[in-house]
Amino acid sequence: MKPLWLNEPFPCPSLEHETRAKARQNQLTKPPGSLGGLETIAIRICALQGRDSPSLDRVRIVVFAGDHGVAKAGVSAYPQEVTREMVRNFSRGGAAINVLARQIGAFLEVVDVGVVADPGPLPGVISRRAGDGTADFRTQPAMTGQSLRIAFEAGAEAVERARATGCDLFIGGEMGIGNTTAATALACALLSETPRRLAGPGTGLDSAGVARKVTVIEQALTEYARTSHDPWETLRHLGGFEIAALTGSMLAAARSGLPVLVDGFIVSVAALLAVRLRPETRPWLLFAHESAEPGHQAVLTALEAEPLLRLGMRLGEASGAALAVPLLRCACALHREMATFAEAGVSGGA
Amino acid sequence: MKPLWLNEPFPCPSLEHETRAKARQNQLTKPPGSLGGLETIAIRICALQGRDSPSLDRVRIVVFAGDHGVAKAGVSAYPQEVTREMVRNFSRGGAAINVLARQIGAFLEVVDVGVVADPGPLPGVISRRAGDGTADFRTQPAMTGQSLRIAFEAGAEAVERARATGCDLFIGGEMGIGNTTAATALACALLSETPRRLAGPGTGLDSAGVARKVTVIEQALTEYARTSHDPWETLRHLGGFEIAALTGSMLAAARSGLPVLVDGFIVSVAALLAVRLRPETRPWLLFAHESAEPGHQAVLTALEAEPLLRLGMRLGEASGAALAVPLLRCACALHREMATFAEAGVSGGA
Repeated sequence: MKPLWLNEPFPCPSLEHETRAKARQNQLTKPPGSLGGLETIAIRICALQGRDSPSLDRVRIVVFAGDHGVAKAGVSAYPQEVTREMVRNFSRGGAAINVLARQIGAFLEVVDVGVVADPGPLPGVISRRAGDGTADFRTQPAMTGQSLRIAFEAGAEAVERARATGCDLFIGGEMGIGNTTAATALACALLSETPRRLAGPGTGLDSAGVARKVTVIEQALTEYARTSHDPWETLRHLGGFEIAALTGSMLAAARSGLPVLVDGFIVSVAALLAVRLRPETRPWLLFAHESAEPGHQAVLTALEAEPLLRLGMRLGEASGAALAVPLLRCACALHREMATFAEAGVSGGA
Repeated sequence: MKPLWLNEPFPCPSLEHETRAKARQNQLTKPPGSLGGLETIAIRICALQGRDSPSLDRVRIVVFAGDHGVAKAGVSAYPQEVTREMVRNFSRGGAAINVLARQIGAFLEVVDVGVVADPGPLPGVISRRAGDGTADFRTQPAMTGQSLRIAFEAGAEAVERARATGCDLFIGGEMGIGNTTAATALACALLSETPRRLAGPGTGLDSAGVARKVTVIEQALTEYARTSHDPWETLRHLGGFEIAALTGSMLAAARSGLPVLVDGFIVSVAALLAVRLRPETRPWLLFAHESAEPGHQAVLTALEAEPLLRLGMRLGEASGAALAVPLLRCACALHREMATFAEAGVSGGA
């Protein structure tokens, strides 16, 4: 069963602040539109924050880690134990997202939503385990109703913690060997696409590996085709604990009016699920980057999303979103701090 | 006459550091290549800085301002006095580049290389005036040999000041009403292209304005065709004081082994001139963004440059380069601070 809060009202961004922000952008000492995507972003953040003076000082990154039963089918360039090993690496501060969080001054939290073999207590890691990895979705649903609910609520709880400590922007990330396979299966089901068109190398499969991944996803979709096609059931059949948590986090953030910066392929698939479950989620999502994974473009198109960066990244961990934070902050600072034509005595203002 | 220092030896980036940086990238706890463009950038900065531990703490931005005789032909959406007004705006801290320099913690300097009507002493503005704007290049060369030399050396002096105070990365920017017209004329001459293909709206011309700009550039190219086609003479005929200063700054930076981050269309044209004058300049140039100006892509292609950002910006002032600095810093931090597979006990390292 879906949580009851999914039926509650979701807030709308402030049209009033959006209108004022557009007017201000045209008064700043620059040709109208010359800051390109930065103007659009500043205006949207004003609307989302309901403020004339946008800022993103307090950024929170939450990386959800979980394992996938389908990993045993050889759909990743790495063995399954790497998920748990990377959770330890996050805890010790040695992973890419640790470096980026320090670099941008963001708070980083890791949530274990079901890595294979409980890693036990680790500094900076919160345990909300929905199971010992998901089931192999080639032959059965990846999650039970109960385990899906635990993982999904783990995402919503992460948003509650973010809000309790003050947060201007929420970023979700993921770690889970095999999760591009789950995300691709979900994208195929949600977009009525074929695995052949959307499946890619993930962390680094060769062409034989990608072909194997296609076959695995085809099997999963055949198994899934026997059942209902409600997005919640799609998530339960083809998703993973970390994808469920990400979906829950985005819905919870939108419900509480907290802007979200969406990372790469897997987080975007979770965003698509969130938007299918509640379309009012969409305005609260900003998109950071287009990854190298071929399925990402199809998901972004379905979400009518125009990401800021295209750097050929395919790491996950929220790394692409973290990288976009300084751009968003620059957009806010320009909006707040630039002089207007009138203030500066410059000719040619609107 | 070209300055004699242009004939001196230019240093090469360190192949030894490049090789070591590549090896390190493959040992960091991430799938090889998964940080995309950030890996390439980190490796290049190691090679340029000759260091295993790259960093860009001290960034210096120098905005060169100059006026253009051709502005009287109505080739800009703004009147010529905006150049001087914007110099005052820079001095008071209200322009986009002031905000961005504060945001990224960069030192900002403005150099007046020939704004129409001397603005007099202003805080933060250095006066190196090569004239009261250039001549109208439809009927005569934009600069005399002497004024070109003054503006060109003003760029080289800015690099000397940067080096004297310690600098890890040099960024040049420009302000000059009419300077997309000059830059487009230069690009056409250097790339044997037509104004019709390369001319664009600059700060915001309508289609009639762009058509007028095309005619103006055709006149300038006809006038220019009567003379020699050496890149120095091309710069003198079709350039501007700020473009000459930018060209001088990039050559001086390359000669002293200081990496340069190149901004948008106009700075890229200056980069093309610098590379034509001394091809050894090219390795020292990193490219920040592709602007909305249609000629920029042609210039980037000629330079075999792959910029980091594509945000539809068309402001100038070094704004696109400033915006890319946090990305470069993240690339450096990831290279320095991520754990290796061996350090983290993660399976699957190369």
